[in-house]
Amino acid sequence: MRARITVRLKKGLLNPEAKTIQRSLELLGYKNISGFDTERVFLIDLDVESAEKARREVEEMCRRILVNPVIEEYTIHIE
Amino acid sequence: MRARITVRLKKGLLNPEAKTIQRSLELLGYKNISGFDTERVFLIDLDVESAEKARREVEEMCRRILVNPVIEEYTIHIE
Repeated sequence: MRARITVRLKKGLLNPEAKTIQRSLELLGYKNISGFDTERVFLIDLDVESAEKARREVEEMCRRILVNPVIEEYTIHIE
Repeated sequence: MRARITVRLKKGLLNPEAKTIQRSLELLGYKNISGFDTERVFLIDLDVESAEKARREVEEMCRRILVNPVIEEYTIHIE
């Protein structure tokens, strides 16, 4: 069972990495960028018997270590 | 037009970030992880008239600045 966890900054928070890359692209001549954002993805292969168990376990991992709930939000897809 | 660029290390290369997080999860008691990997995602909103033009432009951005072709590979989705 593979879990795909997508982590992004909560809306309204400044993403300095994204801002820096966007500025670099604009300096290179790309003038038609109206938005730029970044996400992190974790791909976890789990030896569990069901998608529900995988999701439960991954939810717990997110809360305990993978995600900073103060500034980040996440979505989980079980594949 | 929104482009989603997913960047990952080429197969066979060591991903130290992934290894470190996997070890932390195992120390926390998650013993059934058989694989762990990470990806970076860039989301770019582009003011262009067609998906083909967006893809062409984003391909160029990847080659010029977003991706390290020596160690990374990428996929582009135009949404």
